[in-house]
Amino acid sequence: MIKTYKSQKTSFNRQVSNNSKASLPQRNSNKNKTKYSALSSDKKGKLRVMVLGGLEEVGRNMTAIEYENEIIIIDMGLMFPDDNMPGIDFIIPNTTYLEDKKDNIKGVFITHGHYDHIGAIPYTMPKIGNPPMFMGKMTAGLVRRRQQEFKSGGNLKIKEIDENSSIKMGRHFTVEFLRVNHSIPDCFAILVHTPLGTIVHTGDFKIDFSPVNDKPANINRMARIGYQGVMLLMSDSTDATSPGYQLSESKIGEEMSKLFEKIEGRIIIGTFASQLARIQKLFDLAAKHNRRIYLQGRSMISNVEVAHEIGYLKFNPRLLVSDGELPNIPDNQIIILGTGAQGETNAFLSKMVNGDHKIFSLKAGDTVLFSSSVIPGNERSIQHLRDMIVRQGAKVINYRMLDIHAGGHAKQEDLKLMIRLMQPKFFMPIEAHHFMLQAHAELAEEMGIDKNNIFVADNGQVLEFRKTANDVSALLTKEKVPTDYVMVDGLGVGDVSSIVLRDRRMMSADGMIVVIATIDAKTGDIIGNPDLISRGFIYMKENKEIIEKTRMRVKKIVRERTVAISNDDELKNKIRNDVGQFLFKQTKRRPMVLPVVIKV
Amino acid sequence: MIKTYKSQKTSFNRQVSNNSKASLPQRNSNKNKTKYSALSSDKKGKLRVMVLGGLEEVGRNMTAIEYENEIIIIDMGLMFPDDNMPGIDFIIPNTTYLEDKKDNIKGVFITHGHYDHIGAIPYTMPKIGNPPMFMGKMTAGLVRRRQQEFKSGGNLKIKEIDENSSIKMGRHFTVEFLRVNHSIPDCFAILVHTPLGTIVHTGDFKIDFSPVNDKPANINRMARIGYQGVMLLMSDSTDATSPGYQLSESKIGEEMSKLFEKIEGRIIIGTFASQLARIQKLFDLAAKHNRRIYLQGRSMISNVEVAHEIGYLKFNPRLLVSDGELPNIPDNQIIILGTGAQGETNAFLSKMVNGDHKIFSLKAGDTVLFSSSVIPGNERSIQHLRDMIVRQGAKVINYRMLDIHAGGHAKQEDLKLMIRLMQPKFFMPIEAHHFMLQAHAELAEEMGIDKNNIFVADNGQVLEFRKTANDVSALLTKEKVPTDYVMVDGLGVGDVSSIVLRDRRMMSADGMIVVIATIDAKTGDIIGNPDLISRGFIYMKENKEIIEKTRMRVKKIVRERTVAISNDDELKNKIRNDVGQFLFKQTKRRPMVLPVVIKV
Repeated sequence: MIKTYKSQKTSFNRQVSNNSKASLPQRNSNKNKTKYSALSSDKKGKLRVMVLGGLEEVGRNMTAIEYENEIIIIDMGLMFPDDNMPGIDFIIPNTTYLEDKKDNIKGVFITHGHYDHIGAIPYTMPKIGNPPMFMGKMTAGLVRRRQQEFKSGGNLKIKEIDENSSIKMGRHFTVEFLRVNHSIPDCFAILVHTPLGTIVHTGDFKIDFSPVNDKPANINRMARIGYQGVMLLMSDSTDATSPGYQLSESKIGEEMSKLFEKIEGRIIIGTFASQLARIQKLFDLAAKHNRRIYLQGRSMISNVEVAHEIGYLKFNPRLLVSDGELPNIPDNQIIILGTGAQGETNAFLSKMVNGDHKIFSLKAGDTVLFSSSVIPGNERSIQHLRDMIVRQGAKVINYRMLDIHAGGHAKQEDLKLMIRLMQPKFFMPIEAHHFMLQAHAELAEEMGIDKNNIFVADNGQVLEFRKTANDVSALLTKEKVPTDYVMVDGLGVGDVSSIVLRDRRMMSADGMIVVIATIDAKTGDIIGNPDLISRGFIYMKENKEIIEKTRMRVKKIVRERTVAISNDDELKNKIRNDVGQFLFKQTKRRPMVLPVVIKV
Repeated sequence: MIKTYKSQKTSFNRQVSNNSKASLPQRNSNKNKTKYSALSSDKKGKLRVMVLGGLEEVGRNMTAIEYENEIIIIDMGLMFPDDNMPGIDFIIPNTTYLEDKKDNIKGVFITHGHYDHIGAIPYTMPKIGNPPMFMGKMTAGLVRRRQQEFKSGGNLKIKEIDENSSIKMGRHFTVEFLRVNHSIPDCFAILVHTPLGTIVHTGDFKIDFSPVNDKPANINRMARIGYQGVMLLMSDSTDATSPGYQLSESKIGEEMSKLFEKIEGRIIIGTFASQLARIQKLFDLAAKHNRRIYLQGRSMISNVEVAHEIGYLKFNPRLLVSDGELPNIPDNQIIILGTGAQGETNAFLSKMVNGDHKIFSLKAGDTVLFSSSVIPGNERSIQHLRDMIVRQGAKVINYRMLDIHAGGHAKQEDLKLMIRLMQPKFFMPIEAHHFMLQAHAELAEEMGIDKNNIFVADNGQVLEFRKTANDVSALLTKEKVPTDYVMVDGLGVGDVSSIVLRDRRMMSADGMIVVIATIDAKTGDIIGNPDLISRGFIYMKENKEIIEKTRMRVKKIVRERTVAISNDDELKNKIRNDVGQFLFKQTKRRPMVLPVVIKV
């Protein structure tokens, strides 16, 4: 599967401008000089692209690009767990491959400020030697704000960049930035010029010719980049199964404006705190419709503050309602804007609707807008929330009933446009589930990319490029760097093993029962009645018969144990199996049985 | 909130035909004669409608209609649990109100054979004295088949009915049946003629003028029923938030036929075993496209057998592929039809895709059709399944990409038609979440039903009708009969308490730790080191420091216990709180702490 790339253009160096606004921060000299790995001969002249997260999921995005002994990283995101991972807070990329190559890592580039692209930073940066980071102003604001919450995170070396920046990284890389549209300001595609050709990593993007409070997609520059030659395009596949074009955010604004005209009472809006384009539009609409905005939810307040401070959200501060003013504002002059449109229990919307909010409660005449699409898995919580709202005489409007949602990701026609403009030699769909990557790959083929030059890879799978005379060849190797889930649970990072998770799932389904047998160390006789503690299995007070029978069984096992059961472990195993089978027969449930043998 | 109903028509008795094909089975004389409740004066002349399940959820449908001392029941369904109820198999209606009124219950009427209408029968019938049951032929086949799986279920007294049946129940009720369309044959709306007027309970329905293998909606009879006078319409609200008309099943057939023409390899279809209309269509299409069908999944095979036996599924038996023939059938001549379109782990589709199926494995060139809409909560499993299919080189087609799904429930325009035809005096939306009921209520108001005559009730809330001179008045009372969840878990019915569930959730999130302290009964000194057992919390081998510190803490607590801690319970509480706090501080997790104190 070796593919050949005839470099169509001359040296890329010519295109790298020297008007770098961000000067390269000095790398700290690393204490572990000995760890600096010598260039092994098999890495000579090779460019390796490794997507550490984001090829088998939506989330935990992270990509490493390695040329000989130099590495740069794009994004460092988290992913939220699914139902199979009870108790887990979130999942971050596995950086095992990078951890002993700290000195090779020249820099980290962040495409934009969403958690699936920045969420792992506080955990991962210390592990890889805290290299310099480059990101837009808005992104930097959000990353710094979040870092303050982590005592152990340390200081990040952040340099802000914009579309005119050009960063020389080590001896081999030069990095530039292309502004793209998404649902938050300051989103950049990353252009990595390497000795073998240019890699374009789109980050999250959509094509929006009339975005809200953001510059429109720069089609001309995309075309120019394409003309200058793109070796590899790595492109956002999140919406690759949706036909058509993504709606422009300004179109959504028009729909919402019509809606606002008709609403008489309070308007309560739940959205993502990170949807800053939507939030800007709501401030514009508030001004237009003579309403003021009361912000709710920690992340909402924090994001609006950051974005307003640095000039990315533009509104007259008098639009904001203070706590003191609140009681005097008529219902038809207020918008309450908060988090929780996914039905999250601890967010503003849930609290308000359930009567747990300290200031607000819902009332008849209110209109609640769910201004974000439903993330798979949250449907039931949202149904419950809608029930509770309607019960209190308020109205619900959500995006199925009136499309007040424009997604942040390119749909099929937009994706085709990106491919057409970039004209890459090689193509790699990223940032989605496998079947979405596959759908994106099919689009690329339709756009005329050679099927053999399209790589649908798995997390960690190494895509290798090398020079061959005047050409470049690409190979999706069978080498896989580690990408197992690194789970964050409370203060623990990566310490929850599959065994711990299996136990949680088991106890969650059928509970557990502790069986305590006290045994005379000399005679081997059981002393008294075995103690039983049941949790999540059956309510002991109402199941005295089963409990009593289990006790008798344990006594019998201890009494009748043969020579074969010579030690405590064997006795425990016998109790575990016997009691487990007995309880399953009685109840058709399989609680975890925990035998405790005490010798006195 | 008393509403008045001027009876527009003369006595309903006139309309009750006597051509009952089903004779009324003899009621067994009940042993508990003493339990027969004397008619209390406050029930005199009153008609009470109580929906025991299905007003706050989609599922566990059950309605009781009571006139003085006579009760009839409509449906007896189950509901599947949500994420908050780990380990629970399903939820059935609460029948506390009925259990001491066994002799009053004259009969049970089942609208159709889906689990949310029949699933509670094996559990509930014994509790309410096993009264006679009435249902269509198809429904009876499914109920009987399921009953065989329950040893404890006993024999049901089932009478089959059709649209010509008229059943006299006790002294006050006469029941008739109106054929409606849905996604399974033999669906009936139930017409209950009472001394105060006629109640129409639609069951699940859609309006389909060209259904597959079923008679079309009988609009004429609906109009006639409306003309004769409907006091109360209780109508299916499952799709009340969807605008427009529901698609006809035959339209879907056309779309699928176009699709089949293009497919070259094997066609693998996942659907619900209960979607018999869809299954009929697939047999028709198989014949048309020169393919044969191989059935997979226990419930699929069983349902097709039942339906074919009684003539509700019509196909040439030679279309069915036997195990022996299987190897000789070319890929372009076979359809594999099975269960599991919701991504259920144990169903055919999952097994095949994951390589766990004993006969089939997926291969490149296969086309997999998901022919059912996604039930909220299953999105992630389905995404995973699609990933696995695409990985193996097969194609996925689901209803979002090509609408091969027609829902079984009336949409807004269909619901309006039902209300127009029935012209009820009173209206009660049923069979959905509250916000859907509310949406349906708004439609009814648009259709000209007096707002005061529309009742959006909660589960168990009693809707009471009484005669007033020539009129009937209705009152949605504040009386609520019990409707708390009755959870089925293994063999246990209703024995899983909220405490057991809370414990399961707690252990599922952060696991648990058992702390065992052995104490000298005489001196009160701790003997040896406390034992710790951790499950689902931290992996002990990798957290020796925390474990050791916890041990030290327990020792300290025992040693330093004051006179205040005079008994074991207080000592246990102290250990629980202290260790809990310590572990939270160390890990930010809250495992369940189970202290065990053993005195020797």
